[in-house]
Amino acid sequence: MKENRRSFVKKVALSSLFLPFGLPTNLGLGAIPKERKLRVALVGLGRYATRLAQGIALSQHCEVAGIVTGTPSKIPKWREKYDISENSVYNYENFDEIINNKAIDVVYVVLPNGMHKEYAIRAARAGKHVIVEKPMAITAAECEEIIAECNKAGVQLAVGYRLHFEPFNMEMMRLGREKVYGPVRHVEAALGYNTSGIDRNDWHLNAKLSGGGCLQNLGVYCIQGARYVTGEEPIAVTAQLAPVIHKDVFTEVEESIHWQMEFPSGATATCSASSAYPFDRLLASADKGIFELSPAISYGPFQGRTRGSETKSFEFPMTHHQQVQMDEMAKYLLNDKPFPSHISGEEGLKDMKVIDAAYKAAKTGKRVEIV
Amino acid sequence: MKENRRSFVKKVALSSLFLPFGLPTNLGLGAIPKERKLRVALVGLGRYATRLAQGIALSQHCEVAGIVTGTPSKIPKWREKYDISENSVYNYENFDEIINNKAIDVVYVVLPNGMHKEYAIRAARAGKHVIVEKPMAITAAECEEIIAECNKAGVQLAVGYRLHFEPFNMEMMRLGREKVYGPVRHVEAALGYNTSGIDRNDWHLNAKLSGGGCLQNLGVYCIQGARYVTGEEPIAVTAQLAPVIHKDVFTEVEESIHWQMEFPSGATATCSASSAYPFDRLLASADKGIFELSPAISYGPFQGRTRGSETKSFEFPMTHHQQVQMDEMAKYLLNDKPFPSHISGEEGLKDMKVIDAAYKAAKTGKRVEIV
Repeated sequence: MKENRRSFVKKVALSSLFLPFGLPTNLGLGAIPKERKLRVALVGLGRYATRLAQGIALSQHCEVAGIVTGTPSKIPKWREKYDISENSVYNYENFDEIINNKAIDVVYVVLPNGMHKEYAIRAARAGKHVIVEKPMAITAAECEEIIAECNKAGVQLAVGYRLHFEPFNMEMMRLGREKVYGPVRHVEAALGYNTSGIDRNDWHLNAKLSGGGCLQNLGVYCIQGARYVTGEEPIAVTAQLAPVIHKDVFTEVEESIHWQMEFPSGATATCSASSAYPFDRLLASADKGIFELSPAISYGPFQGRTRGSETKSFEFPMTHHQQVQMDEMAKYLLNDKPFPSHISGEEGLKDMKVIDAAYKAAKTGKRVEIV
Repeated sequence: MKENRRSFVKKVALSSLFLPFGLPTNLGLGAIPKERKLRVALVGLGRYATRLAQGIALSQHCEVAGIVTGTPSKIPKWREKYDISENSVYNYENFDEIINNKAIDVVYVVLPNGMHKEYAIRAARAGKHVIVEKPMAITAAECEEIIAECNKAGVQLAVGYRLHFEPFNMEMMRLGREKVYGPVRHVEAALGYNTSGIDRNDWHLNAKLSGGGCLQNLGVYCIQGARYVTGEEPIAVTAQLAPVIHKDVFTEVEESIHWQMEFPSGATATCSASSAYPFDRLLASADKGIFELSPAISYGPFQGRTRGSETKSFEFPMTHHQQVQMDEMAKYLLNDKPFPSHISGEEGLKDMKVIDAAYKAAKTGKRVEIV
């Protein structure tokens, strides 16, 4: 059983993926021009955009160069904090004028899910590279439209999958894909928070804006986890909507959902997402042992554990996920290299096909194949 | 949030449930006659019977007083080891003569599941109290027959639910039922072993003898866990048989299965059992936190953890499960008191109704209500 953590640490350290203040890395993409930073415009200035901007500010290779908001009162604080030029501030009406702004390289869409498609497409048509926060949109069909428009416009497209750059999750990927405990036979993934006290006007409760509930917003991490640990694509899904506990809150979107996935090898995954109760876990069971993170998905601190012939814990430094994500994404764009497939629009589409299938399975009570 | 572990430790310590060499306890049942031990006859001398006999030998209040076996070659070693009288050795043909044996108080059926019903009923008809190893039988209908025959014979009936006497699991029950983290909303329970290298003649692979695969033998612990943590009875089940990995081994019984349960409060449980890959876990998610055991069900060492406003681990001394179980069961029989409901035949029947429903759900792909 190969379980050479040291070599992994070394490998990751070399690429500085988890060094909060790491040296420039290149992933074989050639040197990054030192004077050049990736200039990011954020569309939507909500809670996640705030965290993202913090990560960008901490990053080596990116800067918050523009903002797009429907709330003028937010503008002065953001402009001051990130030293944003007046010419790089837009609202939702004049956003398309960004086509004329040479000081913006990429548009990062951090709007409610139901608005991703429109703004990703408008960004692409304005000739900007596009990063869309997960979930990429609210249906697979929407994802396909975004991909087609980005291709047509000749711009790059990524989904904000921060955990692909997170060392604990990368170790889970390695343990699974390198079959350190033999073939992975089963994955359990669950993410939930008790958000029953949420502001009733929050977009997450609005079916049109959110495109669903916890499956869209939290479940996508579980689908990702099962996919990146097994290295396989699910072929069928069954799902069950849990009885609603807070009936006055979750009137439009699901509160909790459980779903199961089948993979081509015969591996399975059982997943849960909830907006009523907490969990945060990714576990893989293989022929010769178990490896797991708990917490796994939130902002930790993460804890890793393997159970083969003996039980061991594994640890990595905690990173600022968005900082690392943005520095890594910047390397591709600044070097004019295509994003790797695991953060691409096609990756977002794959997850969304599972989400579509899970909603259908939950609604019909039937096993739904993913095509 | 009440989380008074000290008071729990004290409470449990007082009843000595987890003292491996504890003082006699009485659970309010009055003193146990010091000179009197519960005389147990084991039916079936397989692997589990060996462990059970060890527990009985370690116990204060029980002794292995008889054996029933179809393998004469086993008799000398067992007789010698446990000092068993020649008059208390039976085979499957002459077992009913145990009716005349005044030196046996209770018959513990440790046969393959598919033989439980016959031998439990024969024991009852012989006027002996009956303990049946879990799962109680292979269908709910069989459990009902056993219960009816024991009632008719006026003998007591219990199922060998060792974890009701195990301190970590008792703490999970307490945390759930006392709502220490608020109402339990979800339970995850999973038990699996990679037994793909099993002897092909092992009864666990034989549908007639085992009545099923891992759902019967391992899944029953998960059903128990979900029930004793929530304190509720499931009202509906969905289930999925996992694709078979070792197709040459699991030809008659399921290799791995996932199932989901709904409870009257709206709580849910997601469960997995596998004979192909390992896991061993019981987790409850409540409004204000999580509490979990991992390992939880096997022979440990168990590890407990709670995650509320902070993360804490909880520890208890590991016990010899069968020793404690038998000492506790002895107190009821020696004092002529009825077994408590949580280890009764009715308890076994409740689990078996869920198992019946899960098989039906897996077969039909439909949600099955439990009546």
